[in-house]
Amino acid sequence: MSQNNATLKQMSSVKQAFIKPFPNSEKIYIEGSNADIQVPMRKISLTDTIGELAEKNDPIFVYDTSGIYTDPEAKINLRQGLKPVRGGWIDARGDTETLENYSSNFANQRLENVELEALRFEHLHKPKMAKTGKNVSQMFYAKQGIITAEMEFIAVRENCKLQDYKDQIGQHSGESFGANIQEITAEFVRDEVARGRAVIPANINHPETEPMIIGRNFMVKINGNIGNSALGSSIEEEVDKMLWGIRWGADTIMDLSTGKNIHETREWIIRNSPVPIGTVPIYQALEKVGGVVEDLTWEVFRDTLIEQAEQGVDYFTIHAGVRLKYVPLTIERTTGIVSRGGSIMAKWCLAHHTESFIYTHFEDICQIMQAYDVTFSLGDGLRPGCIADANDAAQFGELETLGELTKIAWKYDVQTFIEGPGHVPMQMIKENMEKQLAECGEAPFYTLGPLTTDIAPGYDHITSAIGAAQIGWYGCAMLCYVTPKEHLGLPNQDDVKQGIIAYKIAAHAADLAKGHPGAQIRDNALSKARFEFRWEDQFNLGLDPDTARKYHDETLPKQAAKTSHFCSMCGPKFCSMKITQEIKTMDAAEIEKINDGFISSATRIAVSTGTIWQSWH
Amino acid sequence: MSQNNATLKQMSSVKQAFIKPFPNSEKIYIEGSNADIQVPMRKISLTDTIGELAEKNDPIFVYDTSGIYTDPEAKINLRQGLKPVRGGWIDARGDTETLENYSSNFANQRLENVELEALRFEHLHKPKMAKTGKNVSQMFYAKQGIITAEMEFIAVRENCKLQDYKDQIGQHSGESFGANIQEITAEFVRDEVARGRAVIPANINHPETEPMIIGRNFMVKINGNIGNSALGSSIEEEVDKMLWGIRWGADTIMDLSTGKNIHETREWIIRNSPVPIGTVPIYQALEKVGGVVEDLTWEVFRDTLIEQAEQGVDYFTIHAGVRLKYVPLTIERTTGIVSRGGSIMAKWCLAHHTESFIYTHFEDICQIMQAYDVTFSLGDGLRPGCIADANDAAQFGELETLGELTKIAWKYDVQTFIEGPGHVPMQMIKENMEKQLAECGEAPFYTLGPLTTDIAPGYDHITSAIGAAQIGWYGCAMLCYVTPKEHLGLPNQDDVKQGIIAYKIAAHAADLAKGHPGAQIRDNALSKARFEFRWEDQFNLGLDPDTARKYHDETLPKQAAKTSHFCSMCGPKFCSMKITQEIKTMDAAEIEKINDGFISSATRIAVSTGTIWQSWH
Repeated sequence: MSQNNATLKQMSSVKQAFIKPFPNSEKIYIEGSNADIQVPMRKISLTDTIGELAEKNDPIFVYDTSGIYTDPEAKINLRQGLKPVRGGWIDARGDTETLENYSSNFANQRLENVELEALRFEHLHKPKMAKTGKNVSQMFYAKQGIITAEMEFIAVRENCKLQDYKDQIGQHSGESFGANIQEITAEFVRDEVARGRAVIPANINHPETEPMIIGRNFMVKINGNIGNSALGSSIEEEVDKMLWGIRWGADTIMDLSTGKNIHETREWIIRNSPVPIGTVPIYQALEKVGGVVEDLTWEVFRDTLIEQAEQGVDYFTIHAGVRLKYVPLTIERTTGIVSRGGSIMAKWCLAHHTESFIYTHFEDICQIMQAYDVTFSLGDGLRPGCIADANDAAQFGELETLGELTKIAWKYDVQTFIEGPGHVPMQMIKENMEKQLAECGEAPFYTLGPLTTDIAPGYDHITSAIGAAQIGWYGCAMLCYVTPKEHLGLPNQDDVKQGIIAYKIAAHAADLAKGHPGAQIRDNALSKARFEFRWEDQFNLGLDPDTARKYHDETLPKQAAKTSHFCSMCGPKFCSMKITQEIKTMDAAEIEKINDGFISSATRIAVSTGTIWQSWH
Repeated sequence: MSQNNATLKQMSSVKQAFIKPFPNSEKIYIEGSNADIQVPMRKISLTDTIGELAEKNDPIFVYDTSGIYTDPEAKINLRQGLKPVRGGWIDARGDTETLENYSSNFANQRLENVELEALRFEHLHKPKMAKTGKNVSQMFYAKQGIITAEMEFIAVRENCKLQDYKDQIGQHSGESFGANIQEITAEFVRDEVARGRAVIPANINHPETEPMIIGRNFMVKINGNIGNSALGSSIEEEVDKMLWGIRWGADTIMDLSTGKNIHETREWIIRNSPVPIGTVPIYQALEKVGGVVEDLTWEVFRDTLIEQAEQGVDYFTIHAGVRLKYVPLTIERTTGIVSRGGSIMAKWCLAHHTESFIYTHFEDICQIMQAYDVTFSLGDGLRPGCIADANDAAQFGELETLGELTKIAWKYDVQTFIEGPGHVPMQMIKENMEKQLAECGEAPFYTLGPLTTDIAPGYDHITSAIGAAQIGWYGCAMLCYVTPKEHLGLPNQDDVKQGIIAYKIAAHAADLAKGHPGAQIRDNALSKARFEFRWEDQFNLGLDPDTARKYHDETLPKQAAKTSHFCSMCGPKFCSMKITQEIKTMDAAEIEKINDGFISSATRIAVSTGTIWQSWH
């Protein structure tokens, strides 16, 4: 065992880097219709514009995934875990019961094992499940016409105080691939969930989550993968990666641990995570049978699903589409099967020469997931692992099966989204999105990248951000990040940050392109700050203020330079923005003369045509 | 003066990092129809596949911009400069004459200034220019039906020994936005240059260039910007940035110096650069008038053009489209004018309330450029500097003027390409490409990014790689890199590398997407190496072998791990590729049984549908 009690005890104090509030930012909470709906936002205060263009600049409110960790008022204790913000809502619905014991044999064995005391999270919850005959999924409520507190929370969260900006926001003029995006009301959220076009991953055993939604008519979300492997990492490191990931903007975290103490690692992560946690249960199932694929059984898998559902995992990647008949389609591929879950199931099918037990037991799985409101992430076990294998028969065969399974899941009102590739060259990306929407009844799509070339190991956060931005624009609802270590090794904390930032960029570029209401507010505020040489505001409005400031400091470290009307790139005489400001403040009559001389009024009206939003001033 | 003789003397020895050959790589030269046509390539040798799938792997040949610096056989002396590979070709054409003195007053003043001795490049060439009545541009030759040595060199270079791969390359099935790409013959190169659809930047005073082409029916090229500013950098640092840029793949280098000793800095760069060098002459012209925009005159500008043309600058960015009438269109923008050259000319026009002297003297400029075969890069002085300003009337008005000017330049057979934005959200990028092709008679497009969001200062190499890949796919011929320091400060050497790699990725992703012949060879070879756990080959085939190896070493530093059938990400039991290899080597009869049981022969044929190239095995 690589950890002792002393190490985990230190977890009660969180590293300063994880809890330091963002500069000039304040954690605020917007109250919903009820005082227990408190939607977190980050308010970024801006300085005033000075000089001839002097004016006050309103603060900007941004979506905030960092939980209470960036709230200086909050008491943080990783050994206690987070407060259950959803606890009251779940109880008030009266359709769940609290169990005395875990339903999973494995969970009980771990609990009884005194050797694990040192590793175990102290304040375990008693598990909840749906009362007999009850369905506790958000999709079930939505179909009944019920707007849950979770839905209202999401409506407020997705609007980012949009109402404050209404007069500054024009109409989107670009090419939109999604359905038309309307004002995000709680009723709209409900309707999207009822149709299956969006999911709210929210296990009743993870009441600590701040509700969020995944669907193409909402902001594009990103997932950060963490997890140990047989070759490295500790519980503490994995909790740190989670905290670091949400600080920079991960909307969900997948714990892909395949190494030691998977059960205990997950408990620590879930209890401290304000964002939904996803897993791939087959990984742990395989651990339980000593890594021997042939020894996997439905019983082991079933117990693992229940074990994880009662811990509070919000979504499961289930590779139910890897059917025996598709396996031979992968033999001639350049890189065969590259999904870990997919390769495990393919090997199992071949070894037993029979259909996958995940496929044959799919309705049993639906019943388990329904009882805890675990969301399906139907895994793409046959996704392409290189450009040469993109969009092939194996990949699309599996996607068709995922479409069939989606309909079965929906019969049980189990929320469902669909995983997608992988490695796909740009010109073949749109086909993926279109086929997924068609086959899977518009269930949300969740892709890994895609990576648009194979030739840059060490930079696959970039090869894949290109594809991710593109598919997000086309309608992909969530983007699974790729770190610079992809294909090379287990990501460390800095890799996690690099992956998150690259994907926040891709997701935001997609939000702009699909015309998500309000998406451009932050771009406009940052650009205005840039033009007015409000350097601190420019840094603070960015995705990573620390790095922006550090880069500026490299050549102009003095505080005075933070209000200078130039930077080291061009120097004082060659700054185009400075020159333009001079133009702007030239004699207005002079400009007018030119206008009159050259430009007809018809041309002048055309000035703003083509910009998607009105400019700020 | 920030440098002394001692510092520059050290330049005779190049830093090891710049000349170290790439691992398992060899510099080779492919001979053209004549022994003095020696086209450089990098040959990457691969190890054999071992185990049950044992086979030999052929070497891969990649386009190589690094000049002789990666050739261990070459004698490198930065104080001497490179050998003039094109010298014999230029002389043989008999249409140029060597001048006794520089034609530029400024150049002669610098030469006579003894205080500059310490900075001056020692082995100055005597300038060449076209004989009276002669036109020495590649476009002129092309229109006459002449295939120059430069064109033949390019045909060999762009094919990357394609003939060796013919049987491994299938047909592209994606959506292509460019004209159909055919086999690249010297005649095809000539025809594209004659039509103006491609340019070969190749000043007769820069005979050291290894010819390259910019056009949408060729590989997408990238440019790296270097140059000092009033706030930093020395000649040595700028030469280092050039060497570092071409090592990682810059196809051209723009020297954007605006600081001290611009003339001498440029001389050092040109004499040591095997790639074309571009500049923005107005920067130096402004320096000459003490930074006072109003004092700029046609005479100063003209002398600067001649000065730089006789040094050997291969292309000039000329902001001739910033006309007085467009300036008022920028007043209401969020970020006004963000091009340095554009803002200088806009201010000049307003100050004098008259049309830009660059516009009114455009035909004079054509005559100068024709005499040296300097290529026009018609600058987009009014490009948008933020998402809010994209595709507006100012930007598109200028583009229409650039279209008119292109036709004038072509009248003089001056090669011409067009600069483009800037900051553009994804859904508005295609309009840029389409409008540019339509307005400018298909002259090559050369864009800066575009950046697809404004919210990530510190990561604009990524925000812009997304847009660059997209516009490259749509037909943009060259992508101007953006470094992580964009908007924040002057890039250092590592920033240059980060920018270059991000743009090599974007350009290659675009080549794949537009179906450039042979583009996928490297992806396929790397993916095959990955699947077969040939780790060293995987590193060596990548854009940056050093970083890939370093990342792998972080968790598995031992040499034995470089042949291990797993990495630290998943560990030995969870490696999907390892499991798939096991599947591949399972009893073939077993697979056959499944095939017979489940898959009709019609489905089996469909296996390869959708892949753009046949897989390797």
